[in-house]
Amino acid sequence: MFFASDNTGPVHPQIMAALAEANDGFAMPYGADPLMDEVRTRLRDIFEAPKAAVYLVATGTAANSLALATLTQPYETVFCSPVAHIHEDECNAPEFFTGGAKLTLVPGGDRMTPEALRAAIAKEESRGVHGPQRGAVSITNVTERGSVYALSEIEALCAVAKDFGLPVHLDGARFANALVAMNCSPADMTWKAGVDAVSFGGTKNGCMGVEAVIFFDPAKAWEFELRRKRGAHLFSKHRYLSAQMAGYLRDDLWLTSARAANANAARLADGMRAKGARFLHDPQANMIFAALPRAAHRRLHEAGAKYYVWAGSLDGHDPDEMLTARLVCDWSIGPERIDAFLALI
Amino acid sequence: MFFASDNTGPVHPQIMAALAEANDGFAMPYGADPLMDEVRTRLRDIFEAPKAAVYLVATGTAANSLALATLTQPYETVFCSPVAHIHEDECNAPEFFTGGAKLTLVPGGDRMTPEALRAAIAKEESRGVHGPQRGAVSITNVTERGSVYALSEIEALCAVAKDFGLPVHLDGARFANALVAMNCSPADMTWKAGVDAVSFGGTKNGCMGVEAVIFFDPAKAWEFELRRKRGAHLFSKHRYLSAQMAGYLRDDLWLTSARAANANAARLADGMRAKGARFLHDPQANMIFAALPRAAHRRLHEAGAKYYVWAGSLDGHDPDEMLTARLVCDWSIGPERIDAFLALI
Amino acid sequence: MFFASDNTGPVHPQIMAALAEANDGFAMPYGADPLMDEVRTRLRDIFEAPKAAVYLVATGTAANSLALATLTQPYETVFCSPVAHIHEDECNAPEFFTGGAKLTLVPGGDRMTPEALRAAIAKEESRGVHGPQRGAVSITNVTERGSVYALSEIEALCAVAKDFGLPVHLDGARFANALVAMNCSPADMTWKAGVDAVSFGGTKNGCMGVEAVIFFDPAKAWEFELRRKRGAHLFSKHRYLSAQMAGYLRDDLWLTSARAANANAARLADGMRAKGARFLHDPQANMIFAALPRAAHRRLHEAGAKYYVWAGSLDGHDPDEMLTARLVCDWSIGPERIDAFLALI
Amino acid sequence: MFFASDNTGPVHPQIMAALAEANDGFAMPYGADPLMDEVRTRLRDIFEAPKAAVYLVATGTAANSLALATLTQPYETVFCSPVAHIHEDECNAPEFFTGGAKLTLVPGGDRMTPEALRAAIAKEESRGVHGPQRGAVSITNVTERGSVYALSEIEALCAVAKDFGLPVHLDGARFANALVAMNCSPADMTWKAGVDAVSFGGTKNGCMGVEAVIFFDPAKAWEFELRRKRGAHLFSKHRYLSAQMAGYLRDDLWLTSARAANANAARLADGMRAKGARFLHDPQANMIFAALPRAAHRRLHEAGAKYYVWAGSLDGHDPDEMLTARLVCDWSIGPERIDAFLALI
Repeated sequence: MFFASDNTGPVHPQIMAALAEANDGFAMPYGADPLMDEVRTRLRDIFEAPKAAVYLVATGTAANSLALATLTQPYETVFCSPVAHIHEDECNAPEFFTGGAKLTLVPGGDRMTPEALRAAIAKEESRGVHGPQRGAVSITNVTERGSVYALSEIEALCAVAKDFGLPVHLDGARFANALVAMNCSPADMTWKAGVDAVSFGGTKNGCMGVEAVIFFDPAKAWEFELRRKRGAHLFSKHRYLSAQMAGYLRDDLWLTSARAANANAARLADGMRAKGARFLHDPQANMIFAALPRAAHRRLHEAGAKYYVWAGSLDGHDPDEMLTARLVCDWSIGPERIDAFLALI
Repeated sequence: MFFASDNTGPVHPQIMAALAEANDGFAMPYGADPLMDEVRTRLRDIFEAPKAAVYLVATGTAANSLALATLTQPYETVFCSPVAHIHEDECNAPEFFTGGAKLTLVPGGDRMTPEALRAAIAKEESRGVHGPQRGAVSITNVTERGSVYALSEIEALCAVAKDFGLPVHLDGARFANALVAMNCSPADMTWKAGVDAVSFGGTKNGCMGVEAVIFFDPAKAWEFELRRKRGAHLFSKHRYLSAQMAGYLRDDLWLTSARAANANAARLADGMRAKGARFLHDPQANMIFAALPRAAHRRLHEAGAKYYVWAGSLDGHDPDEMLTARLVCDWSIGPERIDAFLALI
Repeated sequence: MFFASDNTGPVHPQIMAALAEANDGFAMPYGADPLMDEVRTRLRDIFEAPKAAVYLVATGTAANSLALATLTQPYETVFCSPVAHIHEDECNAPEFFTGGAKLTLVPGGDRMTPEALRAAIAKEESRGVHGPQRGAVSITNVTERGSVYALSEIEALCAVAKDFGLPVHLDGARFANALVAMNCSPADMTWKAGVDAVSFGGTKNGCMGVEAVIFFDPAKAWEFELRRKRGAHLFSKHRYLSAQMAGYLRDDLWLTSARAANANAARLADGMRAKGARFLHDPQANMIFAALPRAAHRRLHEAGAKYYVWAGSLDGHDPDEMLTARLVCDWSIGPERIDAFLALI
Repeated sequence: MFFASDNTGPVHPQIMAALAEANDGFAMPYGADPLMDEVRTRLRDIFEAPKAAVYLVATGTAANSLALATLTQPYETVFCSPVAHIHEDECNAPEFFTGGAKLTLVPGGDRMTPEALRAAIAKEESRGVHGPQRGAVSITNVTERGSVYALSEIEALCAVAKDFGLPVHLDGARFANALVAMNCSPADMTWKAGVDAVSFGGTKNGCMGVEAVIFFDPAKAWEFELRRKRGAHLFSKHRYLSAQMAGYLRDDLWLTSARAANANAARLADGMRAKGARFLHDPQANMIFAALPRAAHRRLHEAGAKYYVWAGSLDGHDPDEMLTARLVCDWSIGPERIDAFLALI
């Protein structure tokens, strides 16, 4: 009963098979392996972007930080949500990789609004050389609170960025989970809306450790390659990154797994709602924030369920106090484990 | 006939098996997996260092850069060989991770001499606040030219560093290949000699992409963890790094593979010597630098052999001119491929 | 009628005289000049801190950034007000000098409250290696909105920092203006309250360009010297920094000038209040934020008065709309200019 | 008898007068003072470069580091002499300001040769993403050993840089001393030869602390302004930097002072030669390296002469051993002090 994160589950067998298949004989290192050609072609097809620059790294923080460093000067500031992973969960990696750029937190919640973004950008407008200069806008979808931007919202945020001439980065650690919830194409969600660079996650959706970084305009491709190498994120035995991503994309496994994960979360949410749980917002992808009484949390934890209580402590006195928890489902967790969990509430 | 690098070969089946075995159910992320406990215990045993801090990263550049950043202040300089990987092959990663420290190249060749190291350190002595301050000494073993330091040489270099109160880092991307050539223990080669931190390579010796960083004094362990996270090198699905390293260490695979690689290189060198090749120095580990006539190189390349001609061009006129090539053997290349290569010379 | 900033006025004649006096013959460079001994002794006396480390730099941003870089690791975050100069007006200099540390904005206004500071620090508590680590607290006094912390407020903020083991930096670009408003000693306001390092401003109070950085615990003195040199802020002809600071401290000029500046601002505020101006808060030091009707601002600007309208535009339609302006007085501006300004309202 | 450096002497009276004259009333801060307009116009005239971007900073290290940071990416390497100030005397400031670029030392002495520069650049050619990328070339004139490049040498070095598409920086901490020794125009020595950016020194030639940075192509002007601010080198009371530089340029004081300094050094060298001193190379500007017997050095030091013995120790046994010293003359030192020094040899 492991709902702590979608990074705690196993690698999908199809990806393990792709790794085993790649493990034959010799291959050129550092991205010159033929599997990388397959990956590049496939991602360009998926995104309808035949000129896109495509790279692989092993962690989501690397994908985000290197993409932002390529889009942002050290005297600029990146606009993002106060709960963005790049702000809260990367131990200053964006500041490090950009050489000391700032992050400006756009007031609001998990999803930035165009109005709040415009106001935040405008506020940095008039200080000349004294304040940080306006840099990239970074959007996370699925957000850190499990919600999913509507396509029109992404378009509106990009439109604001473009009004100020700013590039847009999309943190898609859960890109597939967002996409299957949105009913649009990868191109719609990204470059057609105005996104310049994407962190396209694989790790949380069944891979071992691989994320693609995609620049729709290849002008900064070589700079990215240099920053990746300098950041120690260029793999010598690169074929094993390629193999993961190739396996992930073959036969639409990436979409199938995301649908499975979202369906698991929906089943979990439905069951919890029936037992009286209250939700931070309607579950949309594979991560839910739900409030249960302290007594229920205690029962679940004693039975070995793994997840984070987001606010409040299990040790409080009142057994009826509602405590919000974060619960994340991956593709593998399946109905039996979910139902066993629900039975304990 | 792939002699370009020991990063072009396949992953050892025992390590693939360890990955498959680890791929069962759920595991805590970010290094809290039980396999990491096995790795930590095993490396402490191997190094006879029960208090050592042990961490895993996925690339050799990450291991070196993060270790050096933990040992070095940004206003200091690291002493190393002019052909050190950290200087020539990491696109300024040490400068990046240290926040702008300098590398001082100790005059000489692949192996630093204690006299040259002492002179280089002494030279930085008297400039007060104006020059860079003296920082860590970084030794590479196996060196970038395939030679192996004698234990007494490592001891002497460390003694010089200690005379100036400087920490010592060992770049052991080919640690196992050096060890089996040296006839000493891992402890002898490291902390007993005066080494403070080791990059303990796995990737080039049959792993997929994993290196351990070991600090014999754990005082800076937490700082390393923060620098690893900030450098985007903390894996969420960490168990797959642990599994590789666990598989690598079980049943002394790391030593068996290194002996195989070194034996392959010896067979290659013996065969080449019999055909008139000249060597930069006596082959000691799994990498040789040998001069052959241009005509022989051309024949080999036309037959599909992969390796780097280190100096000079295949396109020159004189078919008898001797051109030096770098040839690297991994554990997997085997006598048939070597003999086929030799037959072409 | 120059109220734009206290950096637009002239250098005090006593400081010009000190410079002229210092300009005799030869002097050792880089801080080894005898005048620096006078400055060090005098500042130690003033702060009742006989072991304090004392350094001079030429800009307030250098003083703040170098002090913070000495107190803060790159994986940490500095706690400060959302209107702090280090956040709004230094173009990412603190991020640059610390090597990529973050600034956490403590919700509230110009003065941090102990409660808000405690909550902000506590919030960074539980993310382990993932979030930024808690670093220094930076307090500005006089604040960027012209208000002055009460001594008890500084003590309470330092107490919160100490509860978490965090160092405290005081941005005293207007240290003297704050001190004469507070009725306490320099020691009271700093190390007795729990402050570890001070940027002690001279430039805004009659110097040409000099600020002292004072560490009450000299343990990090050498690190500061290296960071100052590496930051290109060590002056070769250092005696001219020393001379300014020596002239500034002789005969309590620093206090006399601050009292004059504060008195000028009080006269200005009293006059404006009599004409119907409304104040953001009670004027306390040498900077006031006052609202006047648009028509009055227009008259003043047409007459050549220089100051910043802080919110709103002179170009709006309604002549009666109240627009808040920032007005700063230095020691030199004098009653005639103030009264001429008032006459125009 | 102060020959330790040209940063130990006084400020020229004409520059003190310019500062006094500037100290009248109020002036806009941060470079918007009218004196900066005078400086900009005058330097554009002097360099015959009507579109050049011109900025002032207070230290030579700031001028060099900020110019290089504007010309160099963090994954590049700067080519310079092994004795360049940027390498030996700036405590890693160039590495800091560039965000971690490397310095490649071109083998040879104080003056780089075109052949050695070409070989050093070519050597970085073929490592692809692995090695540092080729960045700016930095030339120092007057060199750190007191020699002066011939114009043809500067032209040849720039031609090599241009062959590889690299920008050229000139460290002109002693620009005026070089110019008056070279018999060419400022334009000849810089942009006509192929130099892209100049650190135009004032401090060592009679100013208090001011250096100009000049970019002949203004395309990166705004980036430089942001880097200067972020580096804490934008002065609020900027008029006092402007006044120094304006005073320095008026009536060709910069040339007159340089001629005086060079003439002082020539007198010193002639006198020493007559007493048997041997020279590292023929004295050309205002800095000489001369060998004298240990006994003579002892006599001079006992009599209070200040200068650096460059190699060897005064404490050695042999009174006749020749020890090389560095002796620097500024404009102010005059024949009496020189002759008194000579009398002691």
